[in-house]
Amino acid sequence: MDTTGSHYIVEASGCNPDVIGDATKIRHILTQAAKAGHMEVKSSYFYRFMPMGVSGVVIVAESHISIHTWPENRYAAIDVYVCGSESNPEKVIDYILDAFGSTHAHVSEVQRGIRDEEIYTHVILTWEEDLKPSSKI
Amino acid sequence: MDTTGSHYIVEASGCNPDVIGDATKIRHILTQAAKAGHMEVKSSYFYRFMPMGVSGVVIVAESHISIHTWPENRYAAIDVYVCGSESNPEKVIDYILDAFGSTHAHVSEVQRGIRDEEIYTHVILTWEEDLKPSSKI
Repeated sequence: MDTTGSHYIVEASGCNPDVIGDATKIRHILTQAAKAGHMEVKSSYFYRFMPMGVSGVVIVAESHISIHTWPENRYAAIDVYVCGSESNPEKVIDYILDAFGSTHAHVSEVQRGIRDEEIYTHVILTWEEDLKPSSKI
Repeated sequence: MDTTGSHYIVEASGCNPDVIGDATKIRHILTQAAKAGHMEVKSSYFYRFMPMGVSGVVIVAESHISIHTWPENRYAAIDVYVCGSESNPEKVIDYILDAFGSTHAHVSEVQRGIRDEEIYTHVILTWEEDLKPSSKI
């Protein structure tokens, strides 16, 4: 089985606090995002911090999506890790950023599991995105 | 609440296939690793691929540990994400690498949620580790 994976690490700024502070909305957005990226959802787990903030994970076949939010700072930390090439992690990220109303994203794409003889490594590419979202919420 | 997080991204080579192919062993190792790193386990989810390989996530307070393994390649992709400073993610990683019998680790430490005015970014430091593990399994 192919060991390589695409792992997107995203710091999303300027997010709508009414969205990223609501675990129910986040669960809905991440489930829809997984579908948009052709991922098969296996399970999900979310919980809300006191007084605010949400953490959660969506387990998809051979991969996962995780989230931690700070609505008081309009900030969300998002990870999308995909093994195999049948799904589209970029669509997942774009869906989430749009639904969160994020205005800026700092993104690193990590290519996981790159083999050099018996040693596995990863390579990282980082970029910035200025966004003009049209919130789906 | 502090937005910064320490996220360790690890490609572990030379792992014991009898360990990283066994979901029950991995669940036990990750739960013990979380305790070693002073993390409070909230929930965990694991599943086994056919014919081999395991994926799973352990949700800990304000953070998570995720794993994807390829026993046929003696390779495991490990993530440990910690928000706040009360837990010790390095101990978690060291515990897992030792229990997996890994001989080499390619590690990136990502400092998440670094604020510059209204924009959040991350910084990445990458290194190699040659290991002489004493398997706990």
